[in-house]
Amino acid sequence: MADQPFPPDFSQFTCPAPLRDRPQIVLGHGGGGALSQDLIEHVFLPAFGNPVLDRLGDSSVLDLAPHLAGGGRLAFSTDSYVVRPLVFPGGSIGDLAVHGTVNDLAMSGARPLYLSAGFILEEGLPIADLVGIVARMAAAARAAGVAIVTGDTKVVERGHGDGVYINTAGIGVVPPGIDLGPKQVVPGDAILVSGTLGDHGMAIMSVREGLEFEAAITSDTAPLHGLVAAMLEACPAIRLLRDPTRGGVATSLNEIAALADVGIEIDEAAIPVSPLVASACEILGLDPLQVANEGKLLAVVPAAAAGDVLAAMQAHEHGRAATPLGRVVAHHPGRVALRTTLGGSRVIPLPLGEQLPRIC
Amino acid sequence: MADQPFPPDFSQFTCPAPLRDRPQIVLGHGGGGALSQDLIEHVFLPAFGNPVLDRLGDSSVLDLAPHLAGGGRLAFSTDSYVVRPLVFPGGSIGDLAVHGTVNDLAMSGARPLYLSAGFILEEGLPIADLVGIVARMAAAARAAGVAIVTGDTKVVERGHGDGVYINTAGIGVVPPGIDLGPKQVVPGDAILVSGTLGDHGMAIMSVREGLEFEAAITSDTAPLHGLVAAMLEACPAIRLLRDPTRGGVATSLNEIAALADVGIEIDEAAIPVSPLVASACEILGLDPLQVANEGKLLAVVPAAAAGDVLAAMQAHEHGRAATPLGRVVAHHPGRVALRTTLGGSRVIPLPLGEQLPRIC
Repeated sequence: MADQPFPPDFSQFTCPAPLRDRPQIVLGHGGGGALSQDLIEHVFLPAFGNPVLDRLGDSSVLDLAPHLAGGGRLAFSTDSYVVRPLVFPGGSIGDLAVHGTVNDLAMSGARPLYLSAGFILEEGLPIADLVGIVARMAAAARAAGVAIVTGDTKVVERGHGDGVYINTAGIGVVPPGIDLGPKQVVPGDAILVSGTLGDHGMAIMSVREGLEFEAAITSDTAPLHGLVAAMLEACPAIRLLRDPTRGGVATSLNEIAALADVGIEIDEAAIPVSPLVASACEILGLDPLQVANEGKLLAVVPAAAAGDVLAAMQAHEHGRAATPLGRVVAHHPGRVALRTTLGGSRVIPLPLGEQLPRIC
Repeated sequence: MADQPFPPDFSQFTCPAPLRDRPQIVLGHGGGGALSQDLIEHVFLPAFGNPVLDRLGDSSVLDLAPHLAGGGRLAFSTDSYVVRPLVFPGGSIGDLAVHGTVNDLAMSGARPLYLSAGFILEEGLPIADLVGIVARMAAAARAAGVAIVTGDTKVVERGHGDGVYINTAGIGVVPPGIDLGPKQVVPGDAILVSGTLGDHGMAIMSVREGLEFEAAITSDTAPLHGLVAAMLEACPAIRLLRDPTRGGVATSLNEIAALADVGIEIDEAAIPVSPLVASACEILGLDPLQVANEGKLLAVVPAAAAGDVLAAMQAHEHGRAATPLGRVVAHHPGRVALRTTLGGSRVIPLPLGEQLPRIC
């Protein structure tokens, strides 16, 4: 046994199981015992409560067969969220944790049904802050029509986290007959985008950099499965959907070009960017094509159906500003080209990393 | 815009997108761009690769209908893993991340099928360390017969993590006719345990405290779904299963007593603890009933079937040391009592928190 100094060094002393009713998270809240139960009973169940979660088993048991009848398939996805700050104009880590995973499912054409929620809390986090984040997360889940049915909480020592990290995994059902994927993409297809680009990234960035404009830039964080359902109703043969989050549209388009082995051309004049975001990008020297979105999607659709899909998008609250962005081409496979307003052309490379860490 | 000092303070400077081929994790590895793709291509796919994951969609699409035919139900569970140290005698955070979630599914009687994996990496983590953990995780998944089909990586700045945090969520299928839960528990039922208690917690503790014995205490981390399947074959009417992880058997038994509203009695003389673990617990003043296990389960079974279930357990590699531990009683509902070797009786309370933080 290692020699212990005497008297012990209490400066390094942390108490895994201190008094209850503390206003802050302590290590014991992650211990699985009475303190963990306090959190579950007083924080998580009141916010997320539903008949499945209330059973409090080690896992949740769900009757999914009716959803899969007739050829439906299961979609399964996960994301961890480490955004800073935890709350920002237009949303919070709780909203992102729901919308991000809901949107990953929606990009498969799935109707999202259930989420899991894993929290990694930092010792010292005010419980009031956790309650606020959980409330926003629960409201986002309710609004998106998904149930949080299973969860877990761990606590790490002060200085080993950042208040709250959240992981969500989601399951949903892809309706029979829907099969989105890069294999379906062919030259001639149209590329549509559901609205303005860069809002989420610049909302976070302007808070962190202390940028002030006449109005706050707000995150576009939103659940997109309703929009996707409307689009698939207009055209079940949509080729592929992607939500351009980290790395922005530049990353998503490069991924599509690589996975489908096609070229992509977009029109500079068609890139939708709000005036505020355009100003902020200019001040900070950022390209809106590389900035993260949390409530937008890119769609590759058969050219003949582009008008119908666009009309369906524009009729939906999350697609009002939808617009054609470009097209799939047979030349320069694997590459994305920008047709500039001056009539030139330049390659849009795959960004190396996100310009802004901890964006989601 | 906040005033910037000139020259800039480079001590706080972090580069989100530095050169490739760095031997350590940098913030850009979490940015979704080329550096993220490097990690996926060179670390995750070679280890986890399977036809579903290789499609690299935002979510994975799985044909689950055949598994649910005839009345099967879906089990869904999640856990985050923050154990320190990352590698310990008998296992690693990668093994725990597979076994923990596989076991949560198994406790519903489910056959685990698919896992998601969410990594939160700390800037500066040697990529070789990540490769080692991912290799152990992949080996554990292969051995357990589950596929890792979707994932995500985020990177946080140096000092805001602890090398690696992992979240896994899992889905599995509960066979038709199996319905485990506290509602099924009735007085007279037998309580069985699958082997010795406290091995995982004391393995971690002895590393952290620098305890040295004639042999290392090794974690019991193991996947238990094969054991569960053998038990359910012996008796499909098993009432309830729990894996006593954080908070140990004391926590699990108290949860069962509370959820089923029954009393529980266990026999001190029946508590299986290995001599090494018993010594370590004595030195550190810990109660083995409160120490975490990662490869053990508690089963509540009809008394008439206890012998058959016990025999099935003892015939399985993860249940060789299975033994009766106690019984469900009608008196003192909600409470757990220990019958001491001297013939007395004392209450085993729900622990407040884990005695040892970051145990899993």
